[in-house]
Parts: sequence; structure tokens; C-alpha cells
Amino acid sequence: MALTTFRGGSEEDKGQLFTHVKALESLLQARRRLPVNVKCVFEGEEEIGSPNFAAFLGRHRDALKADAVVMSDTPMLGPDQPALTYSLRGQLALELEVRGPRRDLHSGNFGGAVHNPLQALCEILARLHDAQGRIAIPGFYDRVRLWSETERDEMARTGPSNELILREAGAPRAWGERGFSNYERLTLRPSLAITGLRGGHGGAGAKAIIPKSAMAKLSFRIVADQDPLEIKRLVARYVASIAPRTVRVFLRSHAQTRPALIDRRHPAMHAAFSAYQRVFGRPPVWLRCGGSIGVVSEFQRLLGIPTVLMGFATSSDGLHGPDEKFSLRNFHRGILTSIAFLEN
Amino acid sequence: MALTTFRGGSEEDKGQLFTHVKALESLLQARRRLPVNVKCVFEGEEEIGSPNFAAFLGRHRDALKADAVVMSDTPMLGPDQPALTYSLRGQLALELEVRGPRRDLHSGNFGGAVHNPLQALCEILARLHDAQGRIAIPGFYDRVRLWSETERDEMARTGPSNELILREAGAPRAWGERGFSNYERLTLRPSLAITGLRGGHGGAGAKAIIPKSAMAKLSFRIVADQDPLEIKRLVARYVASIAPRTVRVFLRSHAQTRPALIDRRHPAMHAAFSAYQRVFGRPPVWLRCGGSIGVVSEFQRLLGIPTVLMGFATSSDGLHGPDEKFSLRNFHRGILTSIAFLEN
Repeated sequence: MALTTFRGGSEEDKGQLFTHVKALESLLQARRRLPVNVKCVFEGEEEIGSPNFAAFLGRHRDALKADAVVMSDTPMLGPDQPALTYSLRGQLALELEVRGPRRDLHSGNFGGAVHNPLQALCEILARLHDAQGRIAIPGFYDRVRLWSETERDEMARTGPSNELILREAGAPRAWGERGFSNYERLTLRPSLAITGLRGGHGGAGAKAIIPKSAMAKLSFRIVADQDPLEIKRLVARYVASIAPRTVRVFLRSHAQTRPALIDRRHPAMHAAFSAYQRVFGRPPVWLRCGGSIGVVSEFQRLLGIPTVLMGFATSSDGLHGPDEKFSLRNFHRGILTSIAFLEN
Repeated sequence: MALTTFRGGSEEDKGQLFTHVKALESLLQARRRLPVNVKCVFEGEEEIGSPNFAAFLGRHRDALKADAVVMSDTPMLGPDQPALTYSLRGQLALELEVRGPRRDLHSGNFGGAVHNPLQALCEILARLHDAQGRIAIPGFYDRVRLWSETERDEMARTGPSNELILREAGAPRAWGERGFSNYERLTLRPSLAITGLRGGHGGAGAKAIIPKSAMAKLSFRIVADQDPLEIKRLVARYVASIAPRTVRVFLRSHAQTRPALIDRRHPAMHAAFSAYQRVFGRPPVWLRCGGSIGVVSEFQRLLGIPTVLMGFATSSDGLHGPDEKFSLRNFHRGILTSIAFLEN
């Protein structure tokens, strides 16, 4: 029995979701019955970290019993190279606020005798990475799982190259933790991105102001066996230790997601593997993904069900960007693969 | 012959401006003539750095001949303690932009293998000050004039105390260049404020994004004998030297204003001194001000005319803040002082 999970927020999410809707519709129209029992779960809170999903799973533990979950929210390796994702990073989204003077101040009348919250925030943020591109928070890497040379060799052979990742990013040059390939940096290794920063005057021209506060949003991507709650404690302790006493610092959390690893030897993974082979005419590659899908680790952790991540997105879809899309070609191939998967 | 300069942008500016309008109106109504010739100059470009003012002075050099300029845009020392400002800092307003990937990226899919422009910007900004609160740009202090112990002693005796400045700022603790009082940090010493920063998602909640660019606005306050053009070159050279090659950096300038020093022994300063004494019942203190008024240095530099800065603002006026005001009591005392000044 398969559990099909529908999640969606963005255009590409919706495109991937409808591959399964169309697959079920086609099978029912052609054969009047499905080859296996299917339960559908609709989840609409992904982009805010699925805060209610664990409780939902707990409440419907029996109704949701299944052999495997299937979900489409991951990429292919290339336009014609399908991939089965077996590893996801987790996430911890935090907000860091620095407050200084009681009100905004004139930068001429007070500049030089007041620690500017924007400056203090930048000084704190600059100390979250060291010069080697590593996260500088003490203890941060303690639980990061080390992988064998065999695993890393396989990733180097089958995964995206340094050049491909750099080209897809459209970045001027490579950057990141020394001693790891770009693919490893995105999947085996944790990362930290400042996803937003606001303070003072952001409009046209100049405004002579020292803002009373400034705020940054942080997104940690964590890997096995890091725990988001423990990481949050480490971040809070480190920030408190480096924050100057000339300002006050506040840390809030937005969302947290555990990392996920799916057993490649599971029968449902085999079924997906051969479904891809039949539709695309070539076997899928095993892929690790740098993104986070909270419900995958929750299905595993709370119900013991593995999730088959059969993704049809391509790098040109512009995930979360202003021109996000999902290609019709992959929509059609996705429907066929979903049908083949259910039949297998 | 006095030249009265009217400038205005904010509420407090307008309040100070009208003290002189009302003074001239009252004198004309009561006596049908003014005790001295008065020319009025209206200047509306202060907040964008008076880009056309120097050219205007050049074109009207003869028409603007005068013994002194009088202007009200500076503060008193306390609610009942008038002050004559004889020193202003200059300003250099810059905008620093850091560009990375061609488009915004998903922070899960690319976090760890791309140098985030927001992070790179914070890392650059954090290196603009050293741990001692000094500006870390090589050569920045080379032309900063050193003042005698006599001058510094007088400032310590008559100027605002460390505690007063801290209280007016409403800052949790003192901060700034070591070896100088708060008053000196704001007036004798140059400073740098980050006046605005924008990048990535600034709204509610979290968004998993690595922004393609980030931007900061900088306001340098400079002192005699620093030159804004030279400082801009030093900033550009230093930023280029510390900017990582993983991003591209762009520096633009918004406005520049030279610092100004006014000779306290000038007869017009004496006239203002005794006008204050008559209206407030006590002599004004000599004050240095941390703010910048571009036209003051331009009158001095291009026409050789000193500016008498007779200010009536108080610290509670909230300059450039959301609740900016100008008190009616000081409006009335300002009118009387302006009349007394013209009579003197």
C-alpha cells in the first residue's frame, strides 16, 4: 500500500504534485481500479516548517499505515537523467535581532559614540563563518556524520560536477568548506545562509540615520546526525558569547526540520528505480539533495515509513525564484513514471 | 550686512527657519526698516548634499557679498542653555553593493557552495571598524587634525558630558574610539555609520533564499582636515582590497560635504554672543556639532564669509525621527535672539 503525499506552495511544487493526481486519474479511467491501495495526504504548511504535521501523524497513526510514501518534490540530475533522492538536509530557520538606542538617531549627531545596531549585527554575522568557509559555532560539527570513501567516490562518479553546480548557481566563483566538492558541500555538509537582512534606510538616496534595531534571518541546513534543537542551543550560546555588551540581542526560531536518509534497498525504491528505467529509457541515479522536506523525516521517525522521492524538477525551474516553472515534458513523463511505479 | 540663509526639510528645520522670518517681519512692522541690510538665501537641497549650491554661489558671487551669514540649524546645550556652534563635521555618503549569483537561489539547494552576497557584505562591513572602535581603512586618520589640551580641556568643561550624550542617545552603553570622550567622538573625531542595509527576505517568517545581491548605505562623518574626495578614494581602495573574489563589489557616492570651522573671534560671533545673553539671561557656550551643513563650508570656501550658527533645537526634538518637533518656547526665544542679533 502506498501513501501519496501532496504538498505544494510554489509553481514547481504544484506541477510535481499533479503528476500523481493525473496518474491516479488515468489509472482509474483505464482500469477502474488501482494496482495498490493509495491514501492521499495533503500538506500545505511546508514553507513554514510543517509545524502541525507531527501532531497530525500522531493522531492518525493507524489510518496512515502504509508500506511506503511517495512524494515528488526533488530534482532530476539533468534534463533527461532521472534521479532518486535518498538524502535530504534538515533546516533550522532563525531570526536574529540587534537592538541599540531607544529610537532612531541622527548619524551626524550621534555617529561615533553609539554602537550602531546594524554594524553590531554585521559584526556578529561575520563571525558565524571562519576564513575557511566553515561555520564558526563551537560544537556545530560534533554530530555531523562522516561518510566512507566508497560513498564519496560514488557521489563523485554519479552526482553533479563542481562545474555544473557552479553553472546552475550562476555564481562568479566557487566558495565553501575546504576539502569537499560542491556536491558534498550541498548535501553531506551543513551550511548557513543569511536569507534576509533589514535595518535603517533602504530606499533611494541617503538618510542620515542610526537605526534603533536591525534584523537578520538565518537558515541553517543540517545533516545527519545533527539535531535542530541542539543546534539552536549552540547558536544561542555562541551569539550570546560574541554579542557586544553595547547592544541587546534577541534570537527567535521560525521553523525546524530534521535531516532525512532513506534506505536505498527498500522494495519501494526498487519499484521506483525500474519505473524510471521504463519511462526514461535509462536508470535513475541516486542523488542527495541539499534542500529540506520536513514530512519525510517525520514519516520515518513517527510511523517508520520510508519516503520514495521521485522528483521531476530540473535546475532551470528556478525554485522559489520570481519565474518559477515546471516543464510540460516532465509533467507528462512524471505521470507515466508514477503509473509505472504504482504498477511495479 | 548679514545674509540670512533659510534651509529646510524636516519639522525642526522649518521651526528654526521661521524664527528669522518672524524676526524680520517683526522688525519691519515695528520700525519699517531693518538695522542692517539682509539678503535671504533659500536652500532646499540640504538632505541630498546640496549638489547645486557651490555652482549657485559661483554664479551669484557679487550679489551675495556680505559680512556674515546667519543660519539656525544647530542645537542648544540644554533646554535653557544657549550655544553657538563653531565646528561642523563633513559627510561622505556612499552605497556599497555586493553581487553574487545571477539570480536569487534556493538556500537549501545551493547553501554551502555559493558565497552569499549578504554574508560577503556583512564580512566587508565588519572589517570597516577595528576592535578599538576605530575606522580600519588605511590612511583614514592621516589628515585628522589633532587639538591642543587647552581646546580639549575647554570642551570637557563646557560641552555635554559623557552621561548626557549617552542619555540623549538612549543607548545601553558607551561605544567608540578609545581615548576620547563621547563629545570628542562626535565632533573632533570622524565616524562611520551604516545607515541602511537591504538584502533577501525582510518580511514576516522565513524564505529559503540566497539573494543575488545585497546593498548597504554608509555615512562617513569627516573632520578638518579630511577631504571627502580623498576619503572616497581610500574607501574604494580598501573595499577592493578586502572584497572576496567570490563576489563583485560596486561603490557609488550619494553626497559629500566638507567639514567647517568658524572663527569665534569674528565680530558677527560677538554680536550673536551678546544677543543670546540678552534674551536667555546667560552667555551661550561654544559648541562643536557632529552633524554636517554643506553650505557653511561652501560660504567660507567660495565667498570667504563666516556663518554664525545660532541654533535653538533641543535634544528632545528627535531630529530626523518619526516624531520630530520644534518647541514653541524656543521658537519665541529664537525670534527675540534673531532681532537682538540684527540690532547688535
